[in-house]
Amino acid sequence: MTTSSINFDLAKLPIMTIYDFPKGPYPTRVRIALAEKNLQSHVEFVMVDLYKGEHKTPEFISGKNYSGTLPVLELNDGTCIAECTAITEYLDTLDGAPTLTGRTPFEKGVIHMMSKRAELELLDAISVYFHHATPGLGPNVERYQNAEWGFRQRDKALRGMHYFNDVLKKQPFVAGDAFSMADITVIGGLVFASIVKLPVPEECEALLAWYTKMRERPSVRNQPAFA
Amino acid sequence: MTTSSINFDLAKLPIMTIYDFPKGPYPTRVRIALAEKNLQSHVEFVMVDLYKGEHKTPEFISGKNYSGTLPVLELNDGTCIAECTAITEYLDTLDGAPTLTGRTPFEKGVIHMMSKRAELELLDAISVYFHHATPGLGPNVERYQNAEWGFRQRDKALRGMHYFNDVLKKQPFVAGDAFSMADITVIGGLVFASIVKLPVPEECEALLAWYTKMRERPSVRNQPAFA
Repeated sequence: MTTSSINFDLAKLPIMTIYDFPKGPYPTRVRIALAEKNLQSHVEFVMVDLYKGEHKTPEFISGKNYSGTLPVLELNDGTCIAECTAITEYLDTLDGAPTLTGRTPFEKGVIHMMSKRAELELLDAISVYFHHATPGLGPNVERYQNAEWGFRQRDKALRGMHYFNDVLKKQPFVAGDAFSMADITVIGGLVFASIVKLPVPEECEALLAWYTKMRERPSVRNQPAFA
Repeated sequence: MTTSSINFDLAKLPIMTIYDFPKGPYPTRVRIALAEKNLQSHVEFVMVDLYKGEHKTPEFISGKNYSGTLPVLELNDGTCIAECTAITEYLDTLDGAPTLTGRTPFEKGVIHMMSKRAELELLDAISVYFHHATPGLGPNVERYQNAEWGFRQRDKALRGMHYFNDVLKKQPFVAGDAFSMADITVIGGLVFASIVKLPVPEECEALLAWYTKMRERPSVRNQPAFA
């Protein structure tokens, strides 16, 4: 199957497994991508309890994901695909009609840039804050913390919110005129911001207005993260 | 133009600009991708001196890349694409015949996963070590350092070398049977390892043998990083 395949038969797609924590910011990214692609019924979710450190066990690390993070997509043949961007690329191109990762070189370049920037400047920064400068997943899981680094990353994320606010003053979506993986990544960032009680500053009006609209999308509003 | 375009006319491609530091590990990734795609003659390089902090000026951050990193690809219309993965996606799909980022959903998923893993576990970890636990780019550029975090990341990178060694015991390339963006990312990691004098442990024989082969590729061996 190539990305230009037009004979994709969804009914023949084997059931895939996703190692998941339903309300987690990163798992939510993949859940939104699944919903955008109407692939939910082709997935079986397996709960991995982050608060019990089930993603850091030797079995999970050697068998599912060396980096010890969620989510992980396991294909029918046992191949495990970790990392939200990689999973999104897989899911989005299954039907040969990408809607989230771009169709043209220009779209692909801009979407990948903005999604990575949303990780660097917002989502991953909040994750470091959570794991290093708050109790995070608890003392059994957070065996090393560097609070000073965590607080630096919190401040970086706040600057990131202002950056994305500026972007969204000029265009309706994070990567331009259409909804994409980059929007999903910023949504993941704001889900995590809510968990760590780091509200979007009220002067970030364009970001807040965009977020209200995003939560109206069925693919977003029905996620466990918003229940 | 779509990724399935077969009428791509290289001669009509406008000259692109790349903001670059020729021996830098991240710029080297894009330079290798350019060489693999035979696009070098369509690019004009503009030197940005990292040791003078030219990538951290307000002009660079507001005009070229909010994250203040290199390389950045500037298109003819002024659009700036930062982040190596995004730039590689752009370059690789220009001719509608991707060779570095995957053709099928499976290839795309695995290549993106392994490339991201190479960033997380090797290249980015070494970068943090360099900027936080060594003099890095010097006191005028490194205005905040967290040495403890830097040393943790150095140790993570050493574990990452063993991980990629295990991968390369089982397959000839980082993402499977073919050269890809994921190999380029690991090469970037080992370029940076050399700069910070963090040699690959000699027991990592498969990784070392792979690296020797990689440096035989014309796209790799002619890079300034190896001069």
